[in-house]
Amino acid sequence: MTYCCGILVRDGLVMIADTRTNAGLDNVSTFRKLHVFEEPGRHVLALSTAGNLSISQAVISTLQEGLDNPETGQKETLSTCSSMFRATQLVGRAVRHVYELYGDALKDADVRFDVSFLFGGQVNGGRMRLFMIYSAGNFIECTSDTPFLQIGEHKYGKPVLDRSIGFDMDLYDALKSGLISMDSTMRSNLGVGMPIDILVARRDAGHSELNYRIEPGEPYFHDLRERWSAALRAAHTAIPRPPYGRQR
Amino acid sequence: MTYCCGILVRDGLVMIADTRTNAGLDNVSTFRKLHVFEEPGRHVLALSTAGNLSISQAVISTLQEGLDNPETGQKETLSTCSSMFRATQLVGRAVRHVYELYGDALKDADVRFDVSFLFGGQVNGGRMRLFMIYSAGNFIECTSDTPFLQIGEHKYGKPVLDRSIGFDMDLYDALKSGLISMDSTMRSNLGVGMPIDILVARRDAGHSELNYRIEPGEPYFHDLRERWSAALRAAHTAIPRPPYGRQR
Repeated sequence: MTYCCGILVRDGLVMIADTRTNAGLDNVSTFRKLHVFEEPGRHVLALSTAGNLSISQAVISTLQEGLDNPETGQKETLSTCSSMFRATQLVGRAVRHVYELYGDALKDADVRFDVSFLFGGQVNGGRMRLFMIYSAGNFIECTSDTPFLQIGEHKYGKPVLDRSIGFDMDLYDALKSGLISMDSTMRSNLGVGMPIDILVARRDAGHSELNYRIEPGEPYFHDLRERWSAALRAAHTAIPRPPYGRQR
Repeated sequence: MTYCCGILVRDGLVMIADTRTNAGLDNVSTFRKLHVFEEPGRHVLALSTAGNLSISQAVISTLQEGLDNPETGQKETLSTCSSMFRATQLVGRAVRHVYELYGDALKDADVRFDVSFLFGGQVNGGRMRLFMIYSAGNFIECTSDTPFLQIGEHKYGKPVLDRSIGFDMDLYDALKSGLISMDSTMRSNLGVGMPIDILVARRDAGHSELNYRIEPGEPYFHDLRERWSAALRAAHTAIPRPPYGRQR
């Protein structure tokens, strides 16, 4: 299982991903799911992955090796794409390329071609954007009405984001919301686990501001989990008991 | 969609169910999903349902009409069952009876035999118990380690229960937790909606203490939703910003 969220606020982009993979509960490992592609001054791109690990890794490798552009005959990579839209289309084409290579064999083995991505960043000083890319290579874009996207085990952590995220919030408040959302998910699903990779990219900075791994026991995140739990307990206690019925 | 939860604490049982059903987003209705069977002094039983409405309603009607017991030749109903275990087995048999009647036809129509139940209560002064019954008629029992069970859209509301429910808590605090969990679910899934049916049965009372429908706009529940939102916002604000990165 996996949980990744991406948050795009006025000030910039936050990407958060766990690192747990499992093939059954008895085969649990740690793999990076948040991949950062950065050429300072040209582009900052973050791609987080959910779904079948062999597929998502093949997509990442395909992007690194480059894809032939049938029109120009040139190799295209994230470094040759002139905009976020083109870069997102390239990720989509890489997904379809991997599907062409392995789709039939996976079907024969009764394995679903299950993969999804969050892809955010800024290219050549263009608009900072955040997309969710599906297994067919198609994608949707995050907008200011709902300035976050999630992939993987998204339900446990969604109520926290629904209530706290707004386009005008501070970038590090957005990171805080994302970490609380990750905490809620990890508590309810063993398939989502530490360490957690985070990326923060400020709009128009031309480089990432934070590219960090939160390891188990890291003091701030530990404190956040404790404080959030205590605050929920206090909030629960502060609400009056239901007035219905014949209470003792 | 549906969300129902059952909570079994030392003092008794709480059952909560929404009432929204939908066949697609364009066909939304209100149906009772929490069914109470009560003979004061003999039994208090609450059955909440999730899944295909035609199946769950057929199970309820089958229970009301009674099932032939092949061993005794007698009609068995919830009123003839001598214990919670027997009553739960009867619900399971009713599910299989409905499967025998409609299972093949549903399969032909490509409709999954999708149904599940929470079934809690007390019979003849025996142990108060809470079960989750699956579409095969098999069931699991709630224990004091994790004193709640959920059916339907269970993920959005689970973090709240994971953090707040304990076997020793007050019965109406358990109801409050369940209502907060219902609120979180309703905010994130349009397929779960008001009104909300609730049942509270105190252990060994021999009758239900509360059997109530919370209608939209009901002041206590409205206040609970507002207070919970405000408390989450305050909790979020009170947690320090992440110390990582070069913040402005």
